[in-house]
Amino acid sequence: MSKSGSKTKPFKELISLESAQERLFDHIKPISATEDISLNEALNRILAQDITAGINVPPFARAAMDGYAVVAEDTYNASDLKPKLLKCIGAIYAGDEPALAMTQGQCVSIATGAMLPDGANSVAMVEYTEEFGDEIKIHKSVHPGENVSKRGNDIQEGTKPLFDGYELTASRIGAVAALGIQRVEVYLKPKVAIAGTGNEICPLGQELKPGQVYDINTYTLASVVKSSGGEPFLLGLVNDTREALAEAFKKAIEFADIVVFSGGSSVGERDLLIDIFSAHGKVLFHGVQLKPGKPVLAAVVKDRICFGFPGFPTSCLTSALIFLGPTVRKLAHGQAYWPKTVKAKLGRRVPSTLGRTQVLTVKIAEGVAQPAFKESGAITSMAEADGYIVIPSNVDLVEKDESVEVFLL
Amino acid sequence: MSKSGSKTKPFKELISLESAQERLFDHIKPISATEDISLNEALNRILAQDITAGINVPPFARAAMDGYAVVAEDTYNASDLKPKLLKCIGAIYAGDEPALAMTQGQCVSIATGAMLPDGANSVAMVEYTEEFGDEIKIHKSVHPGENVSKRGNDIQEGTKPLFDGYELTASRIGAVAALGIQRVEVYLKPKVAIAGTGNEICPLGQELKPGQVYDINTYTLASVVKSSGGEPFLLGLVNDTREALAEAFKKAIEFADIVVFSGGSSVGERDLLIDIFSAHGKVLFHGVQLKPGKPVLAAVVKDRICFGFPGFPTSCLTSALIFLGPTVRKLAHGQAYWPKTVKAKLGRRVPSTLGRTQVLTVKIAEGVAQPAFKESGAITSMAEADGYIVIPSNVDLVEKDESVEVFLL
Repeated sequence: MSKSGSKTKPFKELISLESAQERLFDHIKPISATEDISLNEALNRILAQDITAGINVPPFARAAMDGYAVVAEDTYNASDLKPKLLKCIGAIYAGDEPALAMTQGQCVSIATGAMLPDGANSVAMVEYTEEFGDEIKIHKSVHPGENVSKRGNDIQEGTKPLFDGYELTASRIGAVAALGIQRVEVYLKPKVAIAGTGNEICPLGQELKPGQVYDINTYTLASVVKSSGGEPFLLGLVNDTREALAEAFKKAIEFADIVVFSGGSSVGERDLLIDIFSAHGKVLFHGVQLKPGKPVLAAVVKDRICFGFPGFPTSCLTSALIFLGPTVRKLAHGQAYWPKTVKAKLGRRVPSTLGRTQVLTVKIAEGVAQPAFKESGAITSMAEADGYIVIPSNVDLVEKDESVEVFLL
Repeated sequence: MSKSGSKTKPFKELISLESAQERLFDHIKPISATEDISLNEALNRILAQDITAGINVPPFARAAMDGYAVVAEDTYNASDLKPKLLKCIGAIYAGDEPALAMTQGQCVSIATGAMLPDGANSVAMVEYTEEFGDEIKIHKSVHPGENVSKRGNDIQEGTKPLFDGYELTASRIGAVAALGIQRVEVYLKPKVAIAGTGNEICPLGQELKPGQVYDINTYTLASVVKSSGGEPFLLGLVNDTREALAEAFKKAIEFADIVVFSGGSSVGERDLLIDIFSAHGKVLFHGVQLKPGKPVLAAVVKDRICFGFPGFPTSCLTSALIFLGPTVRKLAHGQAYWPKTVKAKLGRRVPSTLGRTQVLTVKIAEGVAQPAFKESGAITSMAEADGYIVIPSNVDLVEKDESVEVFLL
């Protein structure tokens, strides 16, 4: 109700969280820049190339079990009562190049992973054999191909086991290694420039002056960026002046994919940020029907996503979880970084306000999620929480014992 | 059935997965060694100290909203029709040390985060005020303490907001920062020495000789170690001789908390490893009722956990997921590294063998988990999978459409 000339303007326009996310996500273009890295460093990175098999895996037919390489036909009708007798003409270990070939009536002792000798078409498992000098009794029949991995059975030469956009999990790193490939082309991690604003903010390690509090937000923001698969760049603390903010913004936009100012989105400072963002690009929204986190500002400047987040620590961290994390993950092409969720029963009745999305921190014990909220400035209300639930804007009450999805912190 | 003098002995004793895990976990002692690190590097690390608050957070009573610092009593019964009139005697911004004090009948323009002036006990939100020069109309009453964060409200000086054993999530890093603390004592990450064995294994980057395959396992094992919160140390490929294995073991046991040999647990090589492990410590089990992953060997040597894993890539990776990952996580005191799970419907009927636990890789599409298994040597059967399900040893059949818990890869 303050008149429009007041220096502390209220928000003119609050949009729904859904609209805010839609406007934001419409402007996110996944990273196209790539880098060439060692397979040793590639866990959870996103392939920026198809992987084409230059060899067959395995490169030869090999034994899948320890036992005896045989001609399957020689073992037909073998049983404990009527075992088949074969002459063992040698042994092949894994890594040996078999110098010997065998024919019907013969067998070769073979280790798992060893190349099948010429003439053999299957492997009788050692468990079903008996050894008498160079005579081997086979107690169970095998069919042609049994206990043998065929050449190219895992990956055929010329095929593509992995494609551009695949995330390199442990098993996919294994598939790349199987082909002998040591380096892979992956998408760069999104670079996120983080600046703290607010003249009341004191860097860690310095003594607080009266009226000051320590910098919390650049630390929590950097943590959310890392957890979401991005790379944080800390620009430090910036004075709440148009010149200082513009200078920091100019520096950030030169290298970063995402620029975040914390503490600069509440009224006066927010207006400075809006001016700076809109001078260079397009403001997407300022003010969201979200609690905590209402005074979020988002803009697009030269394909870079720019945020102004509230300065109060939990509001800032909530904004980061709701807007920054998803933005980083979408830019990164990544799946590994989506937050874990668990189901729990809500520990008490929680009223909410229709038309506003509420983010509520909870502590989980024995399947029950107890609200952990203290006040919007209290970092401990989140530090003591295990996760958070999101109460949609069309819900005005969540009953005790209702099943809720908890996003783990 | 081969006689006991055979060079390729079958397993003498297969124990259940549950017994194997119990024997193993009984011997795991969480890491006690610690290191002092910067808060910037502390995400997901585990505190090895209690954090004691040396200051109050906030260090002073501050405005939680933009508006006017008031004496609450002055606003009682204020309404749109009958606003209360107060004289504004100045403004305080965040970071200012207030030089002014106020009394009843007065107010001070105040920004979120700014120190409350002497004499004020609450903040009237700017949305419910109107400004006429230095006269302010208050349209809504506030109660004492409203829109004010009290000194120490978030963290009280002398209390402990975080304890030894807590994992440093984004919000907990925020709580440490709130206290101005720049460095924290955390538990060391478990060091895992990884050696590949098998004369058929060729290092990446070299040309395959006949009978050889590329090294997959040291890459997948290192990935599982990283995903589980440990630090992998690659000892490279070791020849399948008693001397070479003993030498690698001696080197590993000197620095590592966990020692893993891959490919050395199948029969002949396994026997060498058993000899080495039992010469220095105690074998916990060799051979588990698990598919794939039967030939797993585990031992404890001087409080170090030692593994011999099967050489076939999926058997090795499954053993790593079932035994190595949990061991690393327990040693690490960590929570962040437990795998994500999702519920899905099984896409087809899957028979299993009573008395044996089955690990089955699956691909998830639209809530349906389709088995992705190819053969035990096929790394692509895991690389194409999104996760795996564990079919317990007392289940012989999982029906199509049954709900299963999928551990994401």
